[in-house]
Amino acid sequence: DSRLSAAQPPGQLPPLRVVGQLGATYIIAEGPEGMYLLDQHAAHERVLFEQLIAERQAAQVAVQALLEPRPVELSVEAARLLTEYLDVLNGLGFQIEPFGGNTLLVRAVPALVRSADPALVLEDIGAALLSGDQPLGSTIEAVVARQVCKQAAVKAGQLLSQPEMEELVRALERCANPHTCPHGRPTMIHLSVELLAHQFGR
Amino acid sequence: DSRLSAAQPPGQLPPLRVVGQLGATYIIAEGPEGMYLLDQHAAHERVLFEQLIAERQAAQVAVQALLEPRPVELSVEAARLLTEYLDVLNGLGFQIEPFGGNTLLVRAVPALVRSADPALVLEDIGAALLSGDQPLGSTIEAVVARQVCKQAAVKAGQLLSQPEMEELVRALERCANPHTCPHGRPTMIHLSVELLAHQFGR
Repeated sequence: DSRLSAAQPPGQLPPLRVVGQLGATYIIAEGPEGMYLLDQHAAHERVLFEQLIAERQAAQVAVQALLEPRPVELSVEAARLLTEYLDVLNGLGFQIEPFGGNTLLVRAVPALVRSADPALVLEDIGAALLSGDQPLGSTIEAVVARQVCKQAAVKAGQLLSQPEMEELVRALERCANPHTCPHGRPTMIHLSVELLAHQFGR
Repeated sequence: DSRLSAAQPPGQLPPLRVVGQLGATYIIAEGPEGMYLLDQHAAHERVLFEQLIAERQAAQVAVQALLEPRPVELSVEAARLLTEYLDVLNGLGFQIEPFGGNTLLVRAVPALVRSADPALVLEDIGAALLSGDQPLGSTIEAVVARQVCKQAAVKAGQLLSQPEMEELVRALERCANPHTCPHGRPTMIHLSVELLAHQFGR
């Protein structure tokens, strides 16, 4: 079988050696079972998601206070949903309170998204809560955490240094579910030694 | 379509950036159209083959004289075939003469195989001439040149430095037929930008 996806091994990752970056989007690595192509954004989302959920459970989410509280005006529906789930947001590192009408006052954000615009982060979370196309069995907390991690993860098109790639791969190796991002997309393609040999007629 | 081989572009190679080596067997490179996985042995065979044929046409094949002439005893059939094609062998950098019975006397070999055992090289050529499973339309000269290049090419399992990989890829880019080795096996797998994006659900 020459299909890429046929060779995906289940479970934990083996120790991987980082070979290099491809198209500023993928990380190429090798393990005892062949080649792994990692989507750097999806892989980083997975790593951040598991870290954020673990911090949440330990009640130790790193928080970045804003220098000045920031009022953010949202759509009626987004403001209503975010207000309804303020405890979830605040448990994940936000400090948000109602500010009248469709406006929320943001006093702090998760440290993960300290360099992002708080308005864009909240709009993104609102859109995810409203879209309804979340994976089944997904909690509100998971929906919010996913959007935080999506904002925080390295993007496709971003050049990574060898140490940055190593760090990301080491962190992915420690994940409980390394094979998909929190939105369900694959983090990696595995090309087994046998698949490669077969493709080359070895 | 998720098949690896569907994305193989025809014709010449674009300029490729060497990313690294995989399993001491494959070279990973990238170009404007995505990722290329090169089989280092097959690619080197192609490079050497085109060089040797060009040198043959220019009557400038690099020759390595042996310190002492080397008698090589072969099977009856191999000795008969090699004797029949002595002019072809000698045009490709050998200096060989009959030595009685099934024995040939080797005075020089193509510089490409100067570090190989002349007996093994001649046995390999004899086996290829006898096997009869050569590509259609293949000349005796091509059969002999292929076996010389097979012996001379870097093997799978051989670690290559970054400059060695660069040199091989640059040489393959200059080949007229870079996509297959002289025996018809693929030198490369191409994974297009679109294929990769599709695999990752981008």
